[in-house]
Amino acid sequence: MLQDEFVLEQLNQEGLVILQPKTGYRFSLDAVLLARFPALKKGYKIVDLGTGSGVIPLLLSTREENLFIQGVELQPRLAELAKRSVTLNNKEDKIVIWEGDLKALPKDMNGKWDLVVSNPPYFKVNSGKISEGEKAIARHELKCSLEDVINTGQRLLKPKGHFALVHRAERLPEVMSFLSQVKLNPWRLKMVHPKKTKNAELFLLEAVKGSMQTLKILPPLIIFDDSGQYTLEMEKIYAGFNI
Amino acid sequence: MLQDEFVLEQLNQEGLVILQPKTGYRFSLDAVLLARFPALKKGYKIVDLGTGSGVIPLLLSTREENLFIQGVELQPRLAELAKRSVTLNNKEDKIVIWEGDLKALPKDMNGKWDLVVSNPPYFKVNSGKISEGEKAIARHELKCSLEDVINTGQRLLKPKGHFALVHRAERLPEVMSFLSQVKLNPWRLKMVHPKKTKNAELFLLEAVKGSMQTLKILPPLIIFDDSGQYTLEMEKIYAGFNI
Repeated sequence: MLQDEFVLEQLNQEGLVILQPKTGYRFSLDAVLLARFPALKKGYKIVDLGTGSGVIPLLLSTREENLFIQGVELQPRLAELAKRSVTLNNKEDKIVIWEGDLKALPKDMNGKWDLVVSNPPYFKVNSGKISEGEKAIARHELKCSLEDVINTGQRLLKPKGHFALVHRAERLPEVMSFLSQVKLNPWRLKMVHPKKTKNAELFLLEAVKGSMQTLKILPPLIIFDDSGQYTLEMEKIYAGFNI
Repeated sequence: MLQDEFVLEQLNQEGLVILQPKTGYRFSLDAVLLARFPALKKGYKIVDLGTGSGVIPLLLSTREENLFIQGVELQPRLAELAKRSVTLNNKEDKIVIWEGDLKALPKDMNGKWDLVVSNPPYFKVNSGKISEGEKAIARHELKCSLEDVINTGQRLLKPKGHFALVHRAERLPEVMSFLSQVKLNPWRLKMVHPKKTKNAELFLLEAVKGSMQTLKILPPLIIFDDSGQYTLEMEKIYAGFNI
């Protein structure tokens, strides 16, 4: 089955590997950026809401010592894939994959986590029928909404815990509204532009539970330079530097 | 009195002049950026909330034909100064300065304006006593809050009218919240960074009344290049180009 459906890929320069489906869902640049974004400290307990093939927990696990990361994934095949990647990388002591609906995470997990991260489905379900394939569920809010993700993050976090997400530029106002409704206060915001003369496509945002923060709007991340090559900053992120 | 308290300065390449107090309040780069930012059409009726010495109406007045602009200013000396600058530039048919509190603007102005702009006081009044001088009132929310400005803009605008403001980066979450509460939907957002490697200090935001908009996060405006000179984009804005 492995050789038919999945492909094993090298994930970074530190020897991580990851299994990905050959077709359909694949992790993207966005997940890599998110994994390099939040402030981390030794011993943090972290949840990744909608972990897909587990790329964010794997990348996070190399950033600090003694992290414990729980990846939450609704889709059985992706959760299984993530579990296998954890094993392939010998990360079973650091990463646990929990298959299920993030809205059904046990109440005894509430208030116990230092950091919640999410690269949630980007698109609303408006008019038009969307098939419920694996890729569609990862990309569209078929099984969970933005508000579900933010509210779940809020309940899992300790006081002053951090919530970090990547989302599409156009949804910044909604993200700000939902965060403010549950007293997650924006602390760091970074726009991601494909080129310096193009509109942002994504943003990275880190918020803090309860504590009043002064928002910092960080220098923008520009992905490609004028000649279409990765910028130095982007090269450094791929090489393992943090944002 | 003119020669003692005020100084006459050239405002742009098109021959505009403006009176400014020699000490205390002075308009800043921020007002120039805001005047170059919103989308304009011929014949627009525009209100500037907190016009100070009238710099924004004067600059806007050169951008399109048949504009009518009302500048609202609470502080008597600044309102008087703005009126004199309007006269000095022969703009009495295009610009009217209304001295008074924006919260007291007559109800018969409601729903009649195409565009409301504001460069509001940037700082909250927290602890600590702030003297109520002219400059302090222009900079601190002593006489009107952010919410007052946004709510006033909302009531003045026609359906689908536009609201444009410049504000400090750290206040983006509040601005988004207050706008969303009154159904002013963010349409264009531009961060302003002093250098490309520095955090944004300001943002420019244009929202649309009632109509659902897809937010565009525009390429950032960088003020100075690495050698400390104005960037080309900034030079062009000073030369009269729009953002």
